[in-house]
Amino acid sequence: MKIKTISWVKNRIKIIDQTKLPNKLKYIYISKLEDLFEAIRVMRIRGAPALGAAAALGLMLAVHKSSTKRLAQFKKEIEQAACYLGKSRPTAVNLFWALNRMKQVMDDAKLDSISKLKRALLKESAAIIEQDRLICRKMAAHGAKLIKNGDTVLTVCNAGILATVDYGTALGVMYRAKQEKKRFKVFASETRPLLQGARLTTWELLQNKIDVTLICDNQAAGLMKKKLIDKIFVGADRIACNGDTANKVGTYNLAVLAKWHKVPFYVVAPLSTFDKSIKTGKQIPIEQRCSTEVTHNLFKVPVAPRGVKVLNPAFDVTPHELITAFVTEKGILRPPYGKKISKI
Amino acid sequence: MKIKTISWVKNRIKIIDQTKLPNKLKYIYISKLEDLFEAIRVMRIRGAPALGAAAALGLMLAVHKSSTKRLAQFKKEIEQAACYLGKSRPTAVNLFWALNRMKQVMDDAKLDSISKLKRALLKESAAIIEQDRLICRKMAAHGAKLIKNGDTVLTVCNAGILATVDYGTALGVMYRAKQEKKRFKVFASETRPLLQGARLTTWELLQNKIDVTLICDNQAAGLMKKKLIDKIFVGADRIACNGDTANKVGTYNLAVLAKWHKVPFYVVAPLSTFDKSIKTGKQIPIEQRCSTEVTHNLFKVPVAPRGVKVLNPAFDVTPHELITAFVTEKGILRPPYGKKISKI
Repeated sequence: MKIKTISWVKNRIKIIDQTKLPNKLKYIYISKLEDLFEAIRVMRIRGAPALGAAAALGLMLAVHKSSTKRLAQFKKEIEQAACYLGKSRPTAVNLFWALNRMKQVMDDAKLDSISKLKRALLKESAAIIEQDRLICRKMAAHGAKLIKNGDTVLTVCNAGILATVDYGTALGVMYRAKQEKKRFKVFASETRPLLQGARLTTWELLQNKIDVTLICDNQAAGLMKKKLIDKIFVGADRIACNGDTANKVGTYNLAVLAKWHKVPFYVVAPLSTFDKSIKTGKQIPIEQRCSTEVTHNLFKVPVAPRGVKVLNPAFDVTPHELITAFVTEKGILRPPYGKKISKI
Repeated sequence: MKIKTISWVKNRIKIIDQTKLPNKLKYIYISKLEDLFEAIRVMRIRGAPALGAAAALGLMLAVHKSSTKRLAQFKKEIEQAACYLGKSRPTAVNLFWALNRMKQVMDDAKLDSISKLKRALLKESAAIIEQDRLICRKMAAHGAKLIKNGDTVLTVCNAGILATVDYGTALGVMYRAKQEKKRFKVFASETRPLLQGARLTTWELLQNKIDVTLICDNQAAGLMKKKLIDKIFVGADRIACNGDTANKVGTYNLAVLAKWHKVPFYVVAPLSTFDKSIKTGKQIPIEQRCSTEVTHNLFKVPVAPRGVKVLNPAFDVTPHELITAFVTEKGILRPPYGKKISKI
């Protein structure tokens, strides 16, 4: 894939500004922690695995900004940066997972000088990014087995190149299936309110010459009734120990409709998305976002009366009973999930 | 209600231009059949019962335009106008129902002069409009019995004042419940792609001081899971003899979700929406609309890549098994529907 969602270039973070897609492919360079925080908040960068990479590189910005010569003070500054980035978005666990990996490096007593610690942190952030690349490809290899010639698959939101470092989770499965010369078609659900399906998923699938058709979210049931959807592949933002899965709002909708119409429903996510501290989906914090995302056409033209009350949860939780299988880098997990999840 | 969706004023049709809502309440006057056709196509006026009224008044425009002195020629001109208007939108049956009522007047052999026929047609169009006003109020009286104190109800698209002459079908039930001093809240599903829920339903409910909260279509399942929706009320565009119901795309979605979560699902529609010539939903023609409704934010800013394939059906069909009851002007119909529908 030529598109690179996030990378570390000369002590700055280089990302695609995804708010500009599909009209403009614009790379931006971020050198301040505050700018990264803003980029995450307004979703210039988004997608659970990509947020993990962003968090790791965010700490590298703090590393480079630090001018202290005292190790304890240096560690304190990095800790503060981690705490600050942790407040950017609450649901995707990969962000916290990456921050924790970086913090664990700081706990290593052998790294007893700032320069040693700096090198180790840089190495760890590079490892997080390189692992995401490899893990996505492993998931894709497992998941592609689920796609048969002639299939039409549905996906929601964007779980592709733009949601990871450079390959994708749910869409990675499709890139791999295409590489294996399988013939299949994709429906991309537009994903209100921010239209990641319309703006990002169709864009990257078209770039990679995959046959994609855009639909409104509320068309899915009708298409399933007509047997026009064979399988559903989605990503995940956080998965509880029992398999309950938080993902973009509308995912639970689709999972119920899939069960009703007997369409297999697959969640593609790396192990870093499984949160072993959380037993069921009820404990997953759901981000509520600004109402103007709903009331104004991508923040510009009002499409609802002034002052109308709005709900705008960014995610919903799909109970594990509705999930046919999880595709991870360690293979395909089928129910019952409980023990299998804790084992991996 | 102070808002009047459609009326006949000095030989012109006066309508609210609904494409301008909620930002502007603008009335426009239509004196040419072509302008009415365009207004229906782009949905300056929409909603099954309102389209019936528009069709009847459309023929009155043809009546006034005609300068012939020959009765046969006059009838031919009106027939041609009816044929033309019938091509504006295919799904809502009320449009054809109203055109047929007007055409039946022309079949009356006693109306043996142009002036007699003109008077009779004017009377019939006025009757269609007045009946819509009365029927909506009757449906509302029946339907309001279904709303209990403390209920939260969900509706999709706009089945209100703006979809009828001046009162509404599904929303009429809410206006009546409010008049009866019941306490209840409404969720309005925004209804992609043209956002009738966001633009029209929240607007008219706020005008009438009903507690409304706007949601994206893909939030409905999550709210039902949390038991935040007690009942669903929707309108209809065409109902087959067995009860299968075509309504705004997304209605079938909601009906499946309602069944899954055990939420009652009510269709509120006048008898003119029942099509006795059609046995099941499979025979209902579904309008496919322009893809730019989906790819461009209300036709302005692109939100999808150029050239992406799009599906954009305006309606879907909900099988009768998913419908808890129909609310009509003759009362509430519960399953099994077959014989009950043909009886009324």
